[in-house]
Amino acid sequence: MTMEVLLTGASGHVGQAILGDLSDEYQWRLFDIEHPGEEAPGEVIVGDITDREVVAEAVAGVDAVIHLAGDPRRDAGWESVLQNNIHGTYVVFDAAVNAGVERIAFASSNHAVGAFETDERIPDIYRPEDTNRLDGSELPRPGNLYGVSKATGELLGRYYHDEHGVAVVCVRIGNLTEGHPPRDYERGQAMWLSYRDCAHLFDRCLQADYEYLIVFGISDNDRRFYSLEPARTYLGYEPRDNSAEFD
Amino acid sequence: MTMEVLLTGASGHVGQAILGDLSDEYQWRLFDIEHPGEEAPGEVIVGDITDREVVAEAVAGVDAVIHLAGDPRRDAGWESVLQNNIHGTYVVFDAAVNAGVERIAFASSNHAVGAFETDERIPDIYRPEDTNRLDGSELPRPGNLYGVSKATGELLGRYYHDEHGVAVVCVRIGNLTEGHPPRDYERGQAMWLSYRDCAHLFDRCLQADYEYLIVFGISDNDRRFYSLEPARTYLGYEPRDNSAEFD
Repeated sequence: MTMEVLLTGASGHVGQAILGDLSDEYQWRLFDIEHPGEEAPGEVIVGDITDREVVAEAVAGVDAVIHLAGDPRRDAGWESVLQNNIHGTYVVFDAAVNAGVERIAFASSNHAVGAFETDERIPDIYRPEDTNRLDGSELPRPGNLYGVSKATGELLGRYYHDEHGVAVVCVRIGNLTEGHPPRDYERGQAMWLSYRDCAHLFDRCLQADYEYLIVFGISDNDRRFYSLEPARTYLGYEPRDNSAEFD
Repeated sequence: MTMEVLLTGASGHVGQAILGDLSDEYQWRLFDIEHPGEEAPGEVIVGDITDREVVAEAVAGVDAVIHLAGDPRRDAGWESVLQNNIHGTYVVFDAAVNAGVERIAFASSNHAVGAFETDERIPDIYRPEDTNRLDGSELPRPGNLYGVSKATGELLGRYYHDEHGVAVVCVRIGNLTEGHPPRDYERGQAMWLSYRDCAHLFDRCLQADYEYLIVFGISDNDRRFYSLEPARTYLGYEPRDNSAEFD
């Protein structure tokens, strides 16, 4: 039986990467504040992620939630990330648990740990010969208020897992671009995530067995300062792309 | 010269413990939503911690902030902790940094890590022979939404330290009671904090040199599952009480 999945923020880049490869693999319910277009591969719900009533209807009966919705701007102001990212994530997780949803994949961000990239460590940390790796077991160091909001979503996921048993994976998405990695931008190449690796990673989030996880969402880049091991080990993630192949 | 300190939540238990021993040591500015009484040892500001204008006036010119204000109930609902604890802490930290305040001590809570106390681990974890210790380097596991809000305050502190250089210490306060530890309550005895140890700990937070710290605020209890080492090492904390002495 095809798994039914609610995808919030379906019209954004991450949503489009996921649907680009997985539109036929799941029965999709697509939630966004903007309509994803007439060609959208599933039932469409247009609404605000902080609207408890609409979100409760959206999660009813689905097997899993991929929660991407929120203000995606790294320089977003506090009022917006407080409302859309922190409160919005609470609304989605709470509604999902109340509806008996068994797994949630949450789009966290590299910005949850952006302040590890100190002036003393860059640009060395972006280079292949540097062996420093974050693996998600460190205390977060957000690089901006957007990153604070994403790390708070991870805390909410931890709480909902511990308290209610729902499986939660937080994917700290790197730099998602279509076709080729960012050019002349070492940081972006180090945390590049190709569209097909993104879709494959979220596919694994819907298929693998886990309790609570934090993983980094990047391709198999020669340059990187995030470990791929948790995603490989616990999700069976097998990325196919590498930003070095585009040099 | 006497250091001038803004104490938010001055009328609560933690505030009263601090002022009980330290009223003459600092020049106090006392902020609370309720008036702390005519005998209050300092200038009093009555206001809401989420009121940016009042908070901006409250931080102007002080050397340090001890931020205790917020909804203190472990079973507080989401709307309250979102507004009073998460947003309120943002308002205080942001105003403090804008005013050039050089250090902030933030009242976090044992509830930020309450979900480590799983059914499998309790009550053993509360007993003297158990050697498990949390030391603050672990990813938080909040035991309730209040705990989520406190762990988010820690993230905000991390961000404001990394971005703006302000020294921040987060004190995960245990079970503060006056006179004697909780009776017939192993958990409470394990995380007991006496009034005089509480005052001494916050005194150290105002005196020691640090960048960003998470410490546990408990007395030197035989029963304990929190490490005292970070507080001893980095703050010079020397607790004098031990709940076992009251058995």
